[in-house]
Amino acid sequence: MKFATLPNGTLDGHLVVVSKDLSKAVDASAIAPNLLSAVQNWHKNESELQALYEQLNAGKRQDAFDFDPSRCCAPLPRSPQWLDASAFLNHGKLMEEAFNTDPIADFDKIPVMYQGASDDFQGPTVDIPMPKEADGIDFEGEFGVVMAEVPMMASVEETAKAIRLIVQINDWSLRALGPREMNSGFGFLQAKPSSSFAPVAVTPDELGEAWKNGRVNMSLHVTWNGQRFGEPHGSEMNFSFPELMVHAARSRKLTAGCILGSGTVSNKSRDAGSACIAERRVIEKIDLGEIQTQFMKFGDRVRMEAMFDDGSVGPFGVIEQKVVANLVKSQ
Amino acid sequence: MKFATLPNGTLDGHLVVVSKDLSKAVDASAIAPNLLSAVQNWHKNESELQALYEQLNAGKRQDAFDFDPSRCCAPLPRSPQWLDASAFLNHGKLMEEAFNTDPIADFDKIPVMYQGASDDFQGPTVDIPMPKEADGIDFEGEFGVVMAEVPMMASVEETAKAIRLIVQINDWSLRALGPREMNSGFGFLQAKPSSSFAPVAVTPDELGEAWKNGRVNMSLHVTWNGQRFGEPHGSEMNFSFPELMVHAARSRKLTAGCILGSGTVSNKSRDAGSACIAERRVIEKIDLGEIQTQFMKFGDRVRMEAMFDDGSVGPFGVIEQKVVANLVKSQ
Repeated sequence: MKFATLPNGTLDGHLVVVSKDLSKAVDASAIAPNLLSAVQNWHKNESELQALYEQLNAGKRQDAFDFDPSRCCAPLPRSPQWLDASAFLNHGKLMEEAFNTDPIADFDKIPVMYQGASDDFQGPTVDIPMPKEADGIDFEGEFGVVMAEVPMMASVEETAKAIRLIVQINDWSLRALGPREMNSGFGFLQAKPSSSFAPVAVTPDELGEAWKNGRVNMSLHVTWNGQRFGEPHGSEMNFSFPELMVHAARSRKLTAGCILGSGTVSNKSRDAGSACIAERRVIEKIDLGEIQTQFMKFGDRVRMEAMFDDGSVGPFGVIEQKVVANLVKSQ
Repeated sequence: MKFATLPNGTLDGHLVVVSKDLSKAVDASAIAPNLLSAVQNWHKNESELQALYEQLNAGKRQDAFDFDPSRCCAPLPRSPQWLDASAFLNHGKLMEEAFNTDPIADFDKIPVMYQGASDDFQGPTVDIPMPKEADGIDFEGEFGVVMAEVPMMASVEETAKAIRLIVQINDWSLRALGPREMNSGFGFLQAKPSSSFAPVAVTPDELGEAWKNGRVNMSLHVTWNGQRFGEPHGSEMNFSFPELMVHAARSRKLTAGCILGSGTVSNKSRDAGSACIAERRVIEKIDLGEIQTQFMKFGDRVRMEAMFDDGSVGPFGVIEQKVVANLVKSQ
């Protein structure tokens, strides 16, 4: 199934089911008012939502309308938790070089993960206000999962069964603020503004063979101001999503609707390019001896779209956003 | 005004107004269904809630009932964000010694802060399930504020006006897991299980002269298994709550209902004792040459209650909890 969320003045938005080819949508709020509610009550709602999806795909819904991603909010405009890992070892090791930080102990054996803001997720095409260009504005292309409730100390068998939806994410980052926050030991806070999401959240079966080993085996095509930036592949994730969820649930319950991100998709092969600027910069430093690429300027645009290995477009739709200066509102 | 939340099967619970002397309560759900909603719509609800509070205090509510803190959830059972600072320099410096970490740069000038789980806050008297005694189970007594919406890049004048409620918190911590997470640079995740809250959230005016300089000028009386542990005073906070909120809002909007914590209340004077075990342990190491106090065992109890300087009991009610072994539920 494919889901999207339209604005309706509430914090959770309004649920629609989207057709397999992303061309049509239909109101699903008679089954669940919003996607968070659908995930919270999955076993109650699943068969009705599936029936609606099949009717929509078969052209049998008189109430279907053209699906317009530019109207969409994030699939979950708010979520109980946003947990973001750094599960691509290649990215993590390059970033250690970039920030000149000590190697993280057992980085390949124990996931690293922080909690970010989950109360103000951005839709796929809205302009993104940022405080200052000097903060080092960067994008980070990621995949993520939306989960059912996961009890504290859940096993990997339990977490694997708790994955409800797959999502595609732009985890906005402010690179000038990251090193100080990492050095403090308290981790990222100012360095991580609210993340953006592609318009469509999908059940794992929509990925077919591309959902295997608990990973999204698709490439994430990133362009910056219309120029190709990279298309790293999700298969090189060092930990599976179920393994990352076990880490997250070690000492806390994860309530239904929590989102866990992979961290920047990154591949060993230089041919794949990158899904964030910071990674390209450190590659330039290593390969060329100097950093050539600067971070984003106000007015810059980033586009992200996942693709299947056969070259067909992925199911999440497109993130396409412009960075703008935040206007301070005096109160 | 004083507010508490009773369970009603929803994620946000049911709002009641509590009398000034904490003896009586009255249903406030006709004004706002829950405290999150009341904070989100403060300007619309404030005068009606105030009128209800005054009627309750004057004994004019036929529908008043005895206030039973043991029935209460956390005032906000879920919140958009839980941001926890470490704003008592004395605690931070002692903890650096405890964990043998490098001094944090500009610790006295730039707040440190992490984001923790805000989807599963614990009530004041429920048993607290923890994974293992070997994790180093510790309490942390704190004060915190609940805020109105704060825009990105808000000024200290704006954040000062956005403080709606004051709360008292036990920020549960797992000390054996903290150092690795700090060293990774990603900050606390497994080391910070869901926090607990005293039953009553209060508007700043309830503190009278004890709310000044953006700080809670009260002592937090902590006992562990019935033994006095400490009563550090909130006045020694290095940053005010409005200053901490400015830090938090540097690159993100804080939606209405976000909670910001002070970090463990801590005083320079050894006479004040401590509000967490880790601090007592490092003081023992410094003053006595060896650590004598171990962390909590299953079955241990902690009690926290804020007191005014004149010795009268504070407005938040009491946190009184027992730590128990988490039972893994097979699914």
